[in-house]
Amino acid sequence: MQIITSRDNAKVKRLVSLHRRENARREGLVFLEGERLCKDAFESGVCPVEAVVTEKNIPWAEKYAKDTEVTVLSEDCFKKIASTVNPQGIACLVRQPALEKEIPYRGDGNDIYVVLEDVQDPGNLGTIIRTADAFDLTAVIMSPSTCDPFNEKTLRSSMGSVWHLPLVTCPLDDAFAFFGQNGIETLAMHLKGEILKEADIKLPAAYLIGNEGRGLTKEISDKCTRLIKIPMPGKAESLNAAAASAITGYVLSTKRK
Amino acid sequence: MQIITSRDNAKVKRLVSLHRRENARREGLVFLEGERLCKDAFESGVCPVEAVVTEKNIPWAEKYAKDTEVTVLSEDCFKKIASTVNPQGIACLVRQPALEKEIPYRGDGNDIYVVLEDVQDPGNLGTIIRTADAFDLTAVIMSPSTCDPFNEKTLRSSMGSVWHLPLVTCPLDDAFAFFGQNGIETLAMHLKGEILKEADIKLPAAYLIGNEGRGLTKEISDKCTRLIKIPMPGKAESLNAAAASAITGYVLSTKRK
Repeated sequence: MQIITSRDNAKVKRLVSLHRRENARREGLVFLEGERLCKDAFESGVCPVEAVVTEKNIPWAEKYAKDTEVTVLSEDCFKKIASTVNPQGIACLVRQPALEKEIPYRGDGNDIYVVLEDVQDPGNLGTIIRTADAFDLTAVIMSPSTCDPFNEKTLRSSMGSVWHLPLVTCPLDDAFAFFGQNGIETLAMHLKGEILKEADIKLPAAYLIGNEGRGLTKEISDKCTRLIKIPMPGKAESLNAAAASAITGYVLSTKRK
Repeated sequence: MQIITSRDNAKVKRLVSLHRRENARREGLVFLEGERLCKDAFESGVCPVEAVVTEKNIPWAEKYAKDTEVTVLSEDCFKKIASTVNPQGIACLVRQPALEKEIPYRGDGNDIYVVLEDVQDPGNLGTIIRTADAFDLTAVIMSPSTCDPFNEKTLRSSMGSVWHLPLVTCPLDDAFAFFGQNGIETLAMHLKGEILKEADIKLPAAYLIGNEGRGLTKEISDKCTRLIKIPMPGKAESLNAAAASAITGYVLSTKRK
């Protein structure tokens, strides 16, 4: 097996370019760096297009990236393509899954959806996806201007959950039309809402999480069938978007039959 | 008022040095950059040692940093001391509050504590502090090797809450001794625990959150009076530390009388 040792090698240059998210996205690819991210993807059934490893990680590639093109780089070359200071010497390229357009529906009376209006922080998005996965939500629905779920920070904070449940990008009007047709309650956090613990919420339900800076727009909260609030007796004015999503997702999941 | 325009000015050099957390900590200071962080601190009653602004922000300094030394820098000099690409031109130095050694106790039967064993991610720590503030917890108790709460990322994600509630650093053995003396239930998340919703937990209570990578050590969970679990029917193996803390803090806060 040939080991690429020149930083000027065309393949190295191409990998450096694909590590920039905008370049990989243009080609419909996701660049994953580090054993954890790569393993999460493979174990979730994602097929790598190419595995890129240092010499000492060839056995790793043989185990996880079977039937895949494997590129071996010298430690020095790997440093050039990596974004970490002490890279583990494991990376791969996978095909970016198409974000779903249709909203899935189980119809067993236990559907729960989290709907994101322009969430901008990749770490928050990843944590929201991870929590949605933990509570077996039917889908994460994102407005078109929500940040990219295949951003490196989102991938890291989702801990593999981006590969586990349907991610849907659609105009929120379409989501409300779907919820209306299926009799799905829509919940907005609101200072004037009912107290979450006391509200008689029945599933199926969708809850909405707004942008970190401004929260939900009035336009969106006006469309919801119910306003709820999480009481905050302390001095903090609001909860972090991912914390609010975790609490609401948990509470709704306890209502399943 | 004199405006410093030279990047080689001794004061500019000192500010650059203090923006490195380890240097500020050595002098018992915290460097805050950006209007939001500075305003949060001042509005929480923190006294700035010095305000540093660009010319156009002098009115801001006069409003918020009264009775304080104000240093005015040119836009170019401010860029040198800032860590953001497009700085707002507002920064300040505040005296680092001493972390409490004694654990506060309200004794009204509603005390709730979150106890952190070696949480390492500054963003998680800030979010945990923010959520603890929202639910009016009595204190955030941190093992000595938990990350620094005055780290810039922690400050940003805490959204001012670091100034709102007692932060205690102490060996966790001391915390357990305190909980034992006061009949405070101690809760560890554990796969074999009781289901959170069904557990008959009475306040006062403390709940423990472990390190992001390994969770709580067995040594610590063995010391807890009760093991609980948040059911996760999906594919995610675990919850993010800040999400788990938000859910548990919320659930305990609903048990207050």
